[in-house]
Amino acid sequence: MTEMELSTQRQPPHAVGILGGMGPAAGADFVRLFVQACTEQLREQGQPVHDQAYPEHWLVQLPMPDRSLALRRDPQSPTGPAQHLLQGVGRMAALGVRSVALACNTAHAWHGQLQAFFPQLHVLHIARQTALHLQAGGARQAIVLATAGTYDSGLYDAALAGCGIAALLPEEGGRARLMQGIYEGVKQGDTALAARCFGEVLEPLLQRHGRVPVIMGCTEIPLALPLAPQARGAELVDPAWILAQALARDAYGFNRSPDAGALRA
Amino acid sequence: MTEMELSTQRQPPHAVGILGGMGPAAGADFVRLFVQACTEQLREQGQPVHDQAYPEHWLVQLPMPDRSLALRRDPQSPTGPAQHLLQGVGRMAALGVRSVALACNTAHAWHGQLQAFFPQLHVLHIARQTALHLQAGGARQAIVLATAGTYDSGLYDAALAGCGIAALLPEEGGRARLMQGIYEGVKQGDTALAARCFGEVLEPLLQRHGRVPVIMGCTEIPLALPLAPQARGAELVDPAWILAQALARDAYGFNRSPDAGALRA
Repeated sequence: MTEMELSTQRQPPHAVGILGGMGPAAGADFVRLFVQACTEQLREQGQPVHDQAYPEHWLVQLPMPDRSLALRRDPQSPTGPAQHLLQGVGRMAALGVRSVALACNTAHAWHGQLQAFFPQLHVLHIARQTALHLQAGGARQAIVLATAGTYDSGLYDAALAGCGIAALLPEEGGRARLMQGIYEGVKQGDTALAARCFGEVLEPLLQRHGRVPVIMGCTEIPLALPLAPQARGAELVDPAWILAQALARDAYGFNRSPDAGALRA
Repeated sequence: MTEMELSTQRQPPHAVGILGGMGPAAGADFVRLFVQACTEQLREQGQPVHDQAYPEHWLVQLPMPDRSLALRRDPQSPTGPAQHLLQGVGRMAALGVRSVALACNTAHAWHGQLQAFFPQLHVLHIARQTALHLQAGGARQAIVLATAGTYDSGLYDAALAGCGIAALLPEEGGRARLMQGIYEGVKQGDTALAARCFGEVLEPLLQRHGRVPVIMGCTEIPLALPLAPQARGAELVDPAWILAQALARDAYGFNRSPDAGALRA
């Protein structure tokens, strides 16, 4: 199917999949974002909004081993996330979905492997979608808040560099504080602690670099950072929302982004 | 596996499924409730809360034909919800889930058929779970707010009667207003309209019957009713939350409710 056929096709939408569990609260929130993105795109296209207008979509939340830990040890360990991610995407493929989104930034360290194993699917790339979005808005710099695993894998550095955008990262101490906010905060249901950790890391970065976009590069950061007073007035960019919009475009056949086109070709 | 083995078993939890799309916003919200229920049950059992402690769970949101409409015409129409519900539950069965929850009250009109087709699964029943919950709290009466389809099928009347609880329903005009709040309100993203409709129906019922539990018997009602001033101070019962808790108990093997036991036996 050519890009033109995809872009003019309206009915029926393709089935799509969401791979979550990393953590489960973020995965559930990603489904909410996807449904919201579908509603907005139906409205933009002047199509009626009712239950039957939404694409078939699947979510699986698997008890996935820790991604950051695996990247620091053995990313291909038979008991690590690689096997679970391949199982999740493989079962999605069996369900007949066309595109899959990974509801976890760190898991994108395995993106190339997943896409290579399942060429019949489009595996969306959260950092590339985010970089394209920022590039379209004219950004030249962006602060990246993420997990140790995401920093280690250089996920956003590479994607942003590919779009001519410099990645601004916190120091080692700030990175540890982000991990505390994610693991002891969001994953434990302690949103107040998480907001405190995230806000303290963001403040000196904004002071140093001025008003630049802030990429919330872990799906658990948007669940708490907006509550931090230091984030007030900041241009917070939620890659999960950008990814949800891209997945909705894939489902409806509206996707015209170079990233998606390149991967699908 | 006996009931005793199920109740003492701790590791690993069973995979469970959620059938949604009715509407999609309510389905997404049900996943959030399920994750929250799992978190609470892990805490109650003194078990550590981390990504890997959650059960494998699947959500499918299918473009499901209108349930209320089908119940007024031909519930077994080959283009109606029966076929889609059977397809959804059947594909869940193929994924190896142990229990399935339907994230829609009205769809429970087909519950008996779904359970009979797939005896290898436990298909949870939202109204029976709710009635058992109210019975445990000593209720003798309950206001039921629901869709025309749910009223037509007598879903809550039967389940509540089975627990010695009288169902208090709105008049015909109020029922039409509830449908307006669901279809023109929640399903169109107009929460303010929905809250207005739901509140107007609730007010005279509370005046007539006094302080009795209010069953929000459509998964889209809790998305707006709590915002209505008439609902302030009312004892709102969310069957979706009760169902999410029952599904989490099934996953962890903590389920001891008579409803679940009877269906599984």
